Amino acid sequence: MLKLFAPWLLLGVLCPPLAVAGPASGADLIVYGDYLLTMDPAQPELKDAAVVVRDSVIVDVGPRERIDRAWVAEASIPGVGRVLMPGLVNGHTHTAMTLFRGMVDDLDLMTWLNHYVFPMEGRFVTPGFVRTGTELACWEMIRGGTTTFVDMYFYPDEIAAVVERCGLRAVIGSPHIDYPSPGFNGWDDSFAAAADFVARWQGRHPRITPAFAPHAPYTVSAEHLQATVEKATQLNALVTMHLAEAPAETEFVAAQYGTSPVHHVAALGLYQLPLIAAHMVQLDTADIALTAEAGVGAIHNPTSNMKLGAGISPVPAMLAAGVNVGLGTDGAASNNDLDLWEEVRMAALLHKVASGDPTAMPAGQALAMATRLGAAAIHMGATIGQLKTGMQADMIQLDVGQTRHMPLYDVQSHLVYVLDSQDVQTTIVAGQVLMRDRQVLSIDESALRAEVTRASARIRKALREKQ
Amino acid sequence: MLKLFAPWLLLGVLCPPLAVAGPASGADLIVYGDYLLTMDPAQPELKDAAVVVRDSVIVDVGPRERIDRAWVAEASIPGVGRVLMPGLVNGHTHTAMTLFRGMVDDLDLMTWLNHYVFPMEGRFVTPGFVRTGTELACWEMIRGGTTTFVDMYFYPDEIAAVVERCGLRAVIGSPHIDYPSPGFNGWDDSFAAAADFVARWQGRHPRITPAFAPHAPYTVSAEHLQATVEKATQLNALVTMHLAEAPAETEFVAAQYGTSPVHHVAALGLYQLPLIAAHMVQLDTADIALTAEAGVGAIHNPTSNMKLGAGISPVPAMLAAGVNVGLGTDGAASNNDLDLWEEVRMAALLHKVASGDPTAMPAGQALAMATRLGAAAIHMGATIGQLKTGMQADMIQLDVGQTRHMPLYDVQSHLVYVLDSQDVQTTIVAGQVLMRDRQVLSIDESALRAEVTRASARIRKALREKQ
Repeated sequence: MLKLFAPWLLLGVLCPPLAVAGPASGADLIVYGDYLLTMDPAQPELKDAAVVVRDSVIVDVGPRERIDRAWVAEASIPGVGRVLMPGLVNGHTHTAMTLFRGMVDDLDLMTWLNHYVFPMEGRFVTPGFVRTGTELACWEMIRGGTTTFVDMYFYPDEIAAVVERCGLRAVIGSPHIDYPSPGFNGWDDSFAAAADFVARWQGRHPRITPAFAPHAPYTVSAEHLQATVEKATQLNALVTMHLAEAPAETEFVAAQYGTSPVHHVAALGLYQLPLIAAHMVQLDTADIALTAEAGVGAIHNPTSNMKLGAGISPVPAMLAAGVNVGLGTDGAASNNDLDLWEEVRMAALLHKVASGDPTAMPAGQALAMATRLGAAAIHMGATIGQLKTGMQADMIQLDVGQTRHMPLYDVQSHLVYVLDSQDVQTTIVAGQVLMRDRQVLSIDESALRAEVTRASARIRKALREKQ
Repeated sequence: MLKLFAPWLLLGVLCPPLAVAGPASGADLIVYGDYLLTMDPAQPELKDAAVVVRDSVIVDVGPRERIDRAWVAEASIPGVGRVLMPGLVNGHTHTAMTLFRGMVDDLDLMTWLNHYVFPMEGRFVTPGFVRTGTELACWEMIRGGTTTFVDMYFYPDEIAAVVERCGLRAVIGSPHIDYPSPGFNGWDDSFAAAADFVARWQGRHPRITPAFAPHAPYTVSAEHLQATVEKATQLNALVTMHLAEAPAETEFVAAQYGTSPVHHVAALGLYQLPLIAAHMVQLDTADIALTAEAGVGAIHNPTSNMKLGAGISPVPAMLAAGVNVGLGTDGAASNNDLDLWEEVRMAALLHKVASGDPTAMPAGQALAMATRLGAAAIHMGATIGQLKTGMQADMIQLDVGQTRHMPLYDVQSHLVYVLDSQDVQTTIVAGQVLMRDRQVLSIDESALRAEVTRASARIRKALREKQ
């Protein structure tokens, strides 16, 4: 039926949608909201409004009355008691580590890494583990309103297969590191596999972007980082890495290379690429200026940095310098969930207490990091992170009608300081409804639960033997 | 029917419940849990266990099999997929400020207080406002698993009436201050009203404990604090106050009295009373030692302290010195909700990053502050905060069976880092079930919503006029 409206479809795209007195144009989906946060700085908030979707794209945004006159859609989602806004961007995670969620906590970093995380990864991380763990992570992200994530974990083809099926959007970094890791003996084979993964996926899928993922300046040599730069330049690919996370890294890089982690990787050429740098805690003024100038995206992971005692990233200074700062959950082993709403709230609170200034991180700034700025930080600012005509239809509805949300005076403040991930009602990526009325539609939850139960039973047994 | 079992009821109390081969004893309620966190340091965790309640008291705690042989109850609540633990203690809040939730945020403290909070309180706070706001707060606390709270707000008789009806347990502080406040011209009338409130409620109600609530060292003169000490001593009453919250208070007290806030109020005699001191951020080593020695309870409000930029309370040092430290949400105008689970998580994370040490605040310690230690901090450690025979039957069930809770390796870590308030399934105070299957039973939610809608419409209008 939609096909019959072809002339009007075209009109809908080509004409400004204001005051169209003629017949309505056809669309796939109209999503309503009592409140609409577009996150477009020119028009952030609307009341009683709607977003119109055709194929995977937003074709109109505006007040409900005008939209209802201008468009006829195959389907619609009501907006009473709901906020409609862009889906959230999780700029740094290790999805399959959901299977290690809460495996062990509150230890010093080296005991945690060397006695638990690395040995357990060595023992358990297989393609099947990654499939199950990634699916659990994707279920959790869809449930909580994250529509795009940047991953860095082993067996990226398994991750890509899960992302393909569940409908999310992802940058999938294929990890390479100078040490043995699941499936690899060291640098040569892990780097070759990353290059192969990027070459096979680059430009091939509308929702999946491959990336190089050299682990960190303290685990990948300068020579190998230069090789990464060459290959990524050749393939025109994104790069994501851990950078300037903790004091030990700063000390290592200073001792080894006589400079800061940021200046070290910049000098090797990484700052000339579209780089997504996770953590960015240990920064001085020169590091921040260089990052802003290079257009490198910085991903702030407040919960992980707090839980591991890494430090407090100078986020307000980065934002003031013009750095695109996004938010990330890091892996579930150091968080212990993939709840980006908690990162939004944490970012809003942490930088106030760090500076002693309650105006240091207004609610709207924290929300922007989870959406518009986060999209820019992962070099997708032109296609996601705002609800604007021509951008990808990645959006979520939030239920603010429950008693726990009363009263509601200011929507942005409310989302940052009151809302939590269980209030997400609808999740849509590229125009596809992945969750409706809090039910994830694109993942078989009972099959997933059975797989997680099986995988975690083996891990639980191994943990018991360790103790 | 229960009455017929009187001899066995007695036996149930007097005999050790182990291996009772005879007929089962009668009880009112048995509550089960796949996991039971008693928070008793001698036996914190059990699996597949239950708590038996008669009247308002716990009469047995143990493995399900033994409990089922030893007891017959009028009612029971199943525990599959659930954690059973003591209800949470919110050691500092201003309940009725829920009606100001998110009214205005992210301003510097003086603009926020002088331009918004104080004028809006002056204009809107009436007995009816307090009734509605307190009921909204109680609904939210029951929903989120808080069973006891310490309040400090105007019209305490209205607060007491709401607490009486909704079934929660509370310490209700009647505020007195040297300046005009809702209903009062200044010190004389507010202090007289507090003394009257305490005298009328002291020892009269099993769930309601009145308290003196002098506002803070910078708003109540030394002379008036001494008058408070005299009257509280005479009435054998609790005292709760804001203490050592922010740098401005420290400066004021140093200039005025030449000492620290803690030493100032201690010298006036407040440290010889059962004192509940909220915030306790600005402390030196001598302040901490004095607080420990005096047995003063300290209430840590991490979200509020972060949001207002007050600073980071030296909680690990207080705990090491033996201070009973509890957690509080503060009022909804500076949080913006009354979700104690967020405070638990925040406390666990904040002190790790403040010290750079991931072992600084283990999950179990954060949970203890919300239960056993919080109960001790509000001078109720003998009756609440643990699930032990003879203590009050204040407990909650948490649903950890959902997919977002998979996998679950360590219960305490899981509750701190993953669970949130919407996972609370059951709330019980003094043996009465206040919430079952996430439905609050003791408050008429639709009437409450109508009242909140009415009250907040007037506030919204006033906010619009201010802008």
